[in-house]
Amino acid sequence: LARIALDALGGDHAPAETVAGAVEASQRGVDVVLVGPRPALEAELAEHGADLPVVDAPDVVGMGDDPGRALRDKPDASISVAARLVAEGSAQGLVSAGSTGAAMAAAAIIVGRIPGVARPAIATVFPTPATPTLVLDAGANTEVKPEQLAQFGIMGAIASEALFDIESPRVGLLSIGEERGKGRELEKVAWGLLEAGPTNFVGNIEGRDIAADKADVIVTDGFTGNIFLKTTEGAARLMSRYLLEALADIPAEAQEAAFPAIASVKRRLDPETYGGAQLLGVKSVVVVAHGSSSRIAVANALSMARDGADHDLVGRLTATLA
Amino acid sequence: LARIALDALGGDHAPAETVAGAVEASQRGVDVVLVGPRPALEAELAEHGADLPVVDAPDVVGMGDDPGRALRDKPDASISVAARLVAEGSAQGLVSAGSTGAAMAAAAIIVGRIPGVARPAIATVFPTPATPTLVLDAGANTEVKPEQLAQFGIMGAIASEALFDIESPRVGLLSIGEERGKGRELEKVAWGLLEAGPTNFVGNIEGRDIAADKADVIVTDGFTGNIFLKTTEGAARLMSRYLLEALADIPAEAQEAAFPAIASVKRRLDPETYGGAQLLGVKSVVVVAHGSSSRIAVANALSMARDGADHDLVGRLTATLA
Repeated sequence: LARIALDALGGDHAPAETVAGAVEASQRGVDVVLVGPRPALEAELAEHGADLPVVDAPDVVGMGDDPGRALRDKPDASISVAARLVAEGSAQGLVSAGSTGAAMAAAAIIVGRIPGVARPAIATVFPTPATPTLVLDAGANTEVKPEQLAQFGIMGAIASEALFDIESPRVGLLSIGEERGKGRELEKVAWGLLEAGPTNFVGNIEGRDIAADKADVIVTDGFTGNIFLKTTEGAARLMSRYLLEALADIPAEAQEAAFPAIASVKRRLDPETYGGAQLLGVKSVVVVAHGSSSRIAVANALSMARDGADHDLVGRLTATLA
Repeated sequence: LARIALDALGGDHAPAETVAGAVEASQRGVDVVLVGPRPALEAELAEHGADLPVVDAPDVVGMGDDPGRALRDKPDASISVAARLVAEGSAQGLVSAGSTGAAMAAAAIIVGRIPGVARPAIATVFPTPATPTLVLDAGANTEVKPEQLAQFGIMGAIASEALFDIESPRVGLLSIGEERGKGRELEKVAWGLLEAGPTNFVGNIEGRDIAADKADVIVTDGFTGNIFLKTTEGAARLMSRYLLEALADIPAEAQEAAFPAIASVKRRLDPETYGGAQLLGVKSVVVVAHGSSSRIAVANALSMARDGADHDLVGRLTATLA
């Protein structure tokens, strides 16, 4: 059975929400080990009447710290200790809601890259209508080469199969027009590599296609991926705001009926539903969650890491990329 | 009084919708000259019982044509004839819903660039809650240098002042984090240039900030700008779809009350409200409208071109950039 190490000091609401999320995940059958300062974590566990394993790690990497330096200077930081647990095989997955930079650095330095991987990438789950769509890179690599985009396509397809059981996932390239030749030099060269590669490449995907179920995996550089994902968040907020303004004028009974429906849409678009993003290309399942993660988001991130471990995501990536 | 030349053959629904839009704009007081095949345009005008000036141009540049070649090979295409009208001063603005590439080529070759402008940029009006936000470049230049981004900031600020009467418009740089240093090399260098420049630079803007009224002008390269704008469109569609699904279960009377409110939100986010984007950096006001433009979108694009001409947008750009 896969055991998942949780960086219990990572996140804006740690350790209260991280421990509560671990308790929730444990009730769902996830085998969690908490990593952080033992007294604080045991006090939180006592509040839940829960008894989860704890590995002591007294130190923390802050959001403002330089990730590389912090890892060198703080060997007992919770993210470092958690990464060592997966590196030595005591756990099969790692979850952190702390500094994404620190989690990526710990994954690259302590866990290590899968041989053949040029650059690990962050794959975010996008809440599309049919099956979830993976978008990568979501921000790990702001500037990439065409070969890396092609490799993101392969990694994304394997993750889509392993995590969502999608057969022969459709891989699309984010660009500014449907036709081959639309985009920058990066997309033009990557198109050829993706077309010649082993995945089910379906060509370019435009920003407006996100509701149209055209791809299971969307490949882009980390700068564009971040803009794409955050713009979706911003557009949803803008639309919610306009909706609330527009609905303020309808009769009270109609409002009472409509508001729960709107709340359900907000939940459906909420990144917390999935709880985190997969860091693909390192020798362990690693899930990075939002800094603002609630207990539900932490529990969902832990479930997602467990799914990755249970479906041998890393083994599949290693076999294909070697 | 400014006269606006309309490429009446440009657009998916030309000439029926372009002529209808011109008639509508004319009723709003815009002085329009229609450019296209005289018999077809006069037949359309007769249907409206309207009498607008027509300049004959029997040929058309198709969406599939190579813009540069089409301009050389088809001197009597509607977009070329319309561009010559503004180049020779018979009209003070140009509107086209045809091929954006052809409109840009005609503007660059026939109308000409303002001295000192490295690359003209497309400025799209984004329907933010308070005052409209200009996003540029929206797709004219997929790869740019930091100096060009800084110039986009200046052009956008002048357009924001001239078109929306915004004093000292706030100029933001689209990037993947708020702090200086977030982004690619492009954004890092552009930050310094924008900070040292003459505009009211407010730093980086993230994709999620679009509802937060942080900037009046958002500067980015044409690839990222296109992704940003189309993703907003896609996210709005996705959310509408989820909303309709969620509201299908509420009582019929509540639906009847809620649906008009939702339709008003869709209209508010609809690009047709503004009808077009300004091509900034050429020696005339040029507005490029969606290929799918309805008569309302065409009329709005003509009004926008008239506003640009009335507020001496080109004169202000020329004075500042020279």
